[in-house]
Amino acid sequence: MKVTKAVITSAGPAQRALPLQRIIDRDGVSKPVLQIILEEALHAGVDEVGIVVAPGDTEVFAQAVGEHRARLRFIEQAAPRGYGHAVYCARQFVGAAPFLHLVGDHLYISRTEHGCARQLVELARAENCAISAVQPSRESLLPYYGTVGGRLVPGTQNLYVVEQVIEKPTPTEAEQRLMVPGLRVGHYLCFFGMHVLTPTVMELLGAQIERAGASPIQLSPALHELARHERYLALANIGRRYDVGVKYGLLTAQLALALDGPDRDEVLSSLVELLATRHA
Amino acid sequence: MKVTKAVITSAGPAQRALPLQRIIDRDGVSKPVLQIILEEALHAGVDEVGIVVAPGDTEVFAQAVGEHRARLRFIEQAAPRGYGHAVYCARQFVGAAPFLHLVGDHLYISRTEHGCARQLVELARAENCAISAVQPSRESLLPYYGTVGGRLVPGTQNLYVVEQVIEKPTPTEAEQRLMVPGLRVGHYLCFFGMHVLTPTVMELLGAQIERAGASPIQLSPALHELARHERYLALANIGRRYDVGVKYGLLTAQLALALDGPDRDEVLSSLVELLATRHA
Repeated sequence: MKVTKAVITSAGPAQRALPLQRIIDRDGVSKPVLQIILEEALHAGVDEVGIVVAPGDTEVFAQAVGEHRARLRFIEQAAPRGYGHAVYCARQFVGAAPFLHLVGDHLYISRTEHGCARQLVELARAENCAISAVQPSRESLLPYYGTVGGRLVPGTQNLYVVEQVIEKPTPTEAEQRLMVPGLRVGHYLCFFGMHVLTPTVMELLGAQIERAGASPIQLSPALHELARHERYLALANIGRRYDVGVKYGLLTAQLALALDGPDRDEVLSSLVELLATRHA
Repeated sequence: MKVTKAVITSAGPAQRALPLQRIIDRDGVSKPVLQIILEEALHAGVDEVGIVVAPGDTEVFAQAVGEHRARLRFIEQAAPRGYGHAVYCARQFVGAAPFLHLVGDHLYISRTEHGCARQLVELARAENCAISAVQPSRESLLPYYGTVGGRLVPGTQNLYVVEQVIEKPTPTEAEQRLMVPGLRVGHYLCFFGMHVLTPTVMELLGAQIERAGASPIQLSPALHELARHERYLALANIGRRYDVGVKYGLLTAQLALALDGPDRDEVLSSLVELLATRHA
């Protein structure tokens, strides 16, 4: 299965300004967050990217992407009906093909020389099925993430068959339904904000939207259903993710990028200087 | 002398996007850089602020200032004719009154509970003359700043009578004309990006602009002239400045603000975590 399209969601009312914030990438180049996310997708071999934005945001986003403009299609989500609905807005853009999906407020640092998205896309091609990236996370992080339960694919160390997906589970729900053999005690497989999904997900979201009335539509219930319809895997530990939408998220992401690249020594020195001069 | 107006310059081609970048202030509130600079001016007792912006930037800046909109006046600099020319664009706004001047790409952390600008404005009132904030800086920083030479006001420890101002002096010029008795060897009084100026500066800038033809207009030559016309002081060591326009400037400013405020422990912990997990 070949992945040629990506969908990035950036329409959430609290998140829409984030992709426009500038940050210095791993290689020391200053650019908008959106451009780094786009490059993550393009390096994964994607040809075309659909970006779901809030009404009226197309122009300012288009200006922020610079040289990549020609490969983008902007899709406005008419009303803030939730994250799953934002993904669903891209259904015509993706058509009958599988697609890479990234959220617009996370940045990634890969564990290998290839980007996280590329690792995920290559495995989706090899396994010919939907795959979500996941991160073993402490129980205290459950309130922030969709979380999966499942079992290790025999012979692998970080690949799981997904059996359950619950959005922001309570600790009790997690303990009853999402325990994964082999993980450290009190740890769960939380979403990493990066997926390769099949068009089946769009159908499942459509059905969910019909049933939901005015309630917000999440992505996790559709992914839970997906596991009943198709082989659906989860890949753990492909890198680190930084949510730039939380307090000090941009700061942490910027530090992580700077400390991971050739500017590491320069940034470490100014850190030490800052800590030393505070009360000078 | 009462200071009721402030002029902020944000029209430089390389700097114009900076005031719109969001940053978390000392108190943990996320806001655009511009808003923090504005608050610095307003806390100094200023009633009205003129912001000099590049043509077409008024609308996007006006959106970024939020609640402070009513106290602002936007002044577009028609062409990028230099920093001194940007200040001169505000001559009608300031009229015959002294004014506080801040640059749009610096953030400050005060040494006292009062802001840096407020310390400067209070001293200008007490001394009834123009005053620039300065920072004793290593010779290696001379290429970045206007630098003053002068002598300590008797009986003070950080107040100087300005005798010379040179924009970005060479080490030789600095050694010959800007040595200040009492500073550490190899240190000079570099501008801090914050001044209380008299209307005389506008006259001097006007004369300079007439003479200059098409050359860019700096502020330092007018301040050098000012010292010939009026008593003009420099106040050292009122706090720390962070230039958000240099590479990693926003990162350093954000860290400095966070480490100076109530979120210090939280930010230190995530720093330690980042440093520890890099190769995990």
